[in-house]
Amino acid sequence: MKIALAQLNYHIGDFKKNIKKILHAIQRGENNGVDLVVFSELTISGYPPRDFLEFNDFVDECNLAVEEIAKACTQTAAIIGLPTYNHNAKGKPLFNSAAFLTGGKVQSLTHKTLLPNYDIFDEYRYFEPNTSFTVIKFKGKKIALTICEDLWNIQDNPLYILNPMDELMPEHPDFIINIAASPFNYKQVAIREEVLRKNAVKYGLPLFFVNHVGAQTELLFDGGSLVMNKAGEIVDEMKFFEEDFQIYTLEEIANVSRKNHLERPTEIALIHDALVMGIKNYFGKLNFNKAILGLSGGIDSAVTSVLAAKALGNENVYNVLLPSQFSSSHSVFDSLQLVENLKMRYDIINIEKAYDAFDYSLKPYFKGLRFNIAEENLQARIRGVILMALSNKFGYILLNTSNKSEAAVGYGTLYGDMNGGLSVLGDVYKTQIFELAKYINRHNEIIPENIITKPPSAELHPNQKDSDSLPDYAILDKILFEYIEQRKGPKEIIALKYDEVLVRRILKLVNTTEYKRYQTPPMLRISQKAFGMGRRMPIVAKYLS
Amino acid sequence: MKIALAQLNYHIGDFKKNIKKILHAIQRGENNGVDLVVFSELTISGYPPRDFLEFNDFVDECNLAVEEIAKACTQTAAIIGLPTYNHNAKGKPLFNSAAFLTGGKVQSLTHKTLLPNYDIFDEYRYFEPNTSFTVIKFKGKKIALTICEDLWNIQDNPLYILNPMDELMPEHPDFIINIAASPFNYKQVAIREEVLRKNAVKYGLPLFFVNHVGAQTELLFDGGSLVMNKAGEIVDEMKFFEEDFQIYTLEEIANVSRKNHLERPTEIALIHDALVMGIKNYFGKLNFNKAILGLSGGIDSAVTSVLAAKALGNENVYNVLLPSQFSSSHSVFDSLQLVENLKMRYDIINIEKAYDAFDYSLKPYFKGLRFNIAEENLQARIRGVILMALSNKFGYILLNTSNKSEAAVGYGTLYGDMNGGLSVLGDVYKTQIFELAKYINRHNEIIPENIITKPPSAELHPNQKDSDSLPDYAILDKILFEYIEQRKGPKEIIALKYDEVLVRRILKLVNTTEYKRYQTPPMLRISQKAFGMGRRMPIVAKYLS
Repeated sequence: MKIALAQLNYHIGDFKKNIKKILHAIQRGENNGVDLVVFSELTISGYPPRDFLEFNDFVDECNLAVEEIAKACTQTAAIIGLPTYNHNAKGKPLFNSAAFLTGGKVQSLTHKTLLPNYDIFDEYRYFEPNTSFTVIKFKGKKIALTICEDLWNIQDNPLYILNPMDELMPEHPDFIINIAASPFNYKQVAIREEVLRKNAVKYGLPLFFVNHVGAQTELLFDGGSLVMNKAGEIVDEMKFFEEDFQIYTLEEIANVSRKNHLERPTEIALIHDALVMGIKNYFGKLNFNKAILGLSGGIDSAVTSVLAAKALGNENVYNVLLPSQFSSSHSVFDSLQLVENLKMRYDIINIEKAYDAFDYSLKPYFKGLRFNIAEENLQARIRGVILMALSNKFGYILLNTSNKSEAAVGYGTLYGDMNGGLSVLGDVYKTQIFELAKYINRHNEIIPENIITKPPSAELHPNQKDSDSLPDYAILDKILFEYIEQRKGPKEIIALKYDEVLVRRILKLVNTTEYKRYQTPPMLRISQKAFGMGRRMPIVAKYLS
Repeated sequence: MKIALAQLNYHIGDFKKNIKKILHAIQRGENNGVDLVVFSELTISGYPPRDFLEFNDFVDECNLAVEEIAKACTQTAAIIGLPTYNHNAKGKPLFNSAAFLTGGKVQSLTHKTLLPNYDIFDEYRYFEPNTSFTVIKFKGKKIALTICEDLWNIQDNPLYILNPMDELMPEHPDFIINIAASPFNYKQVAIREEVLRKNAVKYGLPLFFVNHVGAQTELLFDGGSLVMNKAGEIVDEMKFFEEDFQIYTLEEIANVSRKNHLERPTEIALIHDALVMGIKNYFGKLNFNKAILGLSGGIDSAVTSVLAAKALGNENVYNVLLPSQFSSSHSVFDSLQLVENLKMRYDIINIEKAYDAFDYSLKPYFKGLRFNIAEENLQARIRGVILMALSNKFGYILLNTSNKSEAAVGYGTLYGDMNGGLSVLGDVYKTQIFELAKYINRHNEIIPENIITKPPSAELHPNQKDSDSLPDYAILDKILFEYIEQRKGPKEIIALKYDEVLVRRILKLVNTTEYKRYQTPPMLRISQKAFGMGRRMPIVAKYLS
């Protein structure tokens, strides 16, 4: 039996484009004598469709589409994900389903049993869990068809009571298929492999895993679909961050062991590629191709600019230098070196004239008061206004250049440097950005060395350094990681031998600046706990603040 | 048996303040010979604690607090909501519980069975549903203790399979207690009463309902706790939008029928009071007392200013008029009339000087291009910068004055008039704002009549009117209501006899401006479907766009 895995990049709600892509893959399968083409979870709608699922019109479109696609499945069968209606009197209105298409029609629907409802997942908001189990019989074989999380109640996961594979085993399936939309984080590739391996080994069955690929706003799907033999060895692994289509012969899987060439990229390489895909898809799916950003001379904007250039082409990144009287000469010099290295477009627009105009208008009200955060923010906001004016005039999308460390402690100006359609580095700690810069420079110096080595500064008052008001990033990032990713409380973090006063100060900064993060652009998610849809905090609260 | 209902306003995570408030209510009960004081859902933490629930430190604080509170329950018993740990090997880590405190300790825990996970609710993200049922025995009576949604699977709700009251009835309870955190919308008061009435009648039991009161960022809890007799008649209803504490005698409930004086406020009066409470609590809980806003001469900023004055006091609202060359003279005149009527502070800061400075800086890049949206947004952003500079300098919170109609179609400038710490009217359609203005003026003309009657305009280019680019609000708001609140698709809306081209154009505007709403401030929620946490849409999607 020949099985093809179609790892494709869907556009949520773009039924026409998604259907075309699916039909093309089925045709490709048919041309190659494939028996079954397997697609990822919620293929037709794209994942996650979120509250579009509350519109019957949207769900109807998905169900009309699957009927149309089924007609193409005469020679080659297909397994395709889509939302379907729950026709029972009770329960949530939908199922998260996998349709088995053969003989020109929808032969059966398999519904998802384990519905993730943590972090970025909201599946219990829409879907009723499945409670009945049966294998799919196809050309003399029995398929255990599962949907993403269905394989994740393996051994030590306390969240779920049912285990779909345990329910299917009495029917003696020949192999497992898992269709997924498993979003990337830099730990996820290894975790996912381990979960799949445990399933293959526990049930002694070969396993075909098809993942979604591509960015859906902040969520990055890395692909990496794979085939495992019943010993849990990877027979083949598909591309990361790119569409792919591979054909496997079931009978051969049993006899092939782990390929020698299976070399995984490093964590930092995965992060790099994930971010590039995130920018590329954000622009591409919105039908934009040009980015604008403010180049400050610091490492965050430099890395953002390089990633944008890789995603969109050097010629499509417009770097604007916006110096003030507080900008150091090396900031401009270093920035010019960077744009020169990549032959990117740039302009220098001094903000002093606009600053003086506001200063004049505000003088009657600010009379006798000291230069403080108000004037610092004013500079950041003038930059924001200029960048948005250029963005509006020429149809660029403004990229936000803030990092996770400063987003966490609220070290940024709302409506100023926090502006942007997309935050590229909002889930990347400052210490990781240094690693990214080194990775970018691994073959030659793209980012000028001085940008990497000089002390970070917002340059909003004379001789300002980040270290004036924040601890070293090496310590800050570790404490933030314990609090944000690990969800440890103050007592647990202090027990790790961090200074108590410092820990409480940092946690207070995080909790009192929630209002700022509420208004930030979507941040490309590369960690296990990113700001945004996966971290839901009240603004008006008094915990640790 | 004397039962007191404590309808209180908690601050999420402020354990010290919440505990003090709870102990005070128990003491008040004890002083009045009360047998049982009943508090609302998740009393100790405040509702909704959201992802603070993922911190054991936070949950531990709640559980330490309940032990402390229990010590005070020697004469008077109490029922109090809090998150507790699920000690079973499987399932979500927490329960949403009601603790029964008597004899100086926690006697029993009752867990919530039906966990709402729609709209603004995320309870399945944190909590395991209850599956075992028993009444509470207290002083010879049996209490059917339920938590909010537990009473909502009555008759025609398809969402849930279990019905906790059906499980409790075999034990022959004497009355029902429901502790709740049921957020306000202008339809909710009537819906809630009907649900409670159906329970009282179906089970033939008196019912004590205790609701949360107060604003938690965008969520407004209206209180309105009540007591019903077994015929489903309201014996007493407590205050809306205010703390309240009332004592009832169980034996008397049976003999009292609906009080004659039960007159509910109108929908628009409820909305008015809800918004005032929303502003008041947002500022109060954040420890701020002064608001700033831009007064444009239009109805939205006028209504916002009046609501802020009611919430914070006239002397604490700072109105800034920011005219440009496009501002009409009546805009300034009308605004001055309003601030005069309420004796509010104001200043006039002309934006032309700042505009000229940006114009000068951008001229080399904009050369030969027509005045368009870029220059319009520039004006809105200059206003935003000035307001934020004043906000930062003097510690005002900027109030956003956008309405739901314009937020829906993206008729607003990011980092300009979309700025603010809190959006007062972001869930109020333009047509409802006219009603609000009339309600505000019901006794005397606070908002100048000309502000209400003149055609709406953003005044960003000469002689601009909203009606140049948008349909009449009377039609726009109806179509938006069908799409947003009713979640009807284009075909269903067109079938209601709206113009097809218009419907498709409006739905496209809504769907292509999701990126703007992602970055708006929290909007006080008064409808059944507000933008924000209760409406979760992908940004990069292609549905109806």
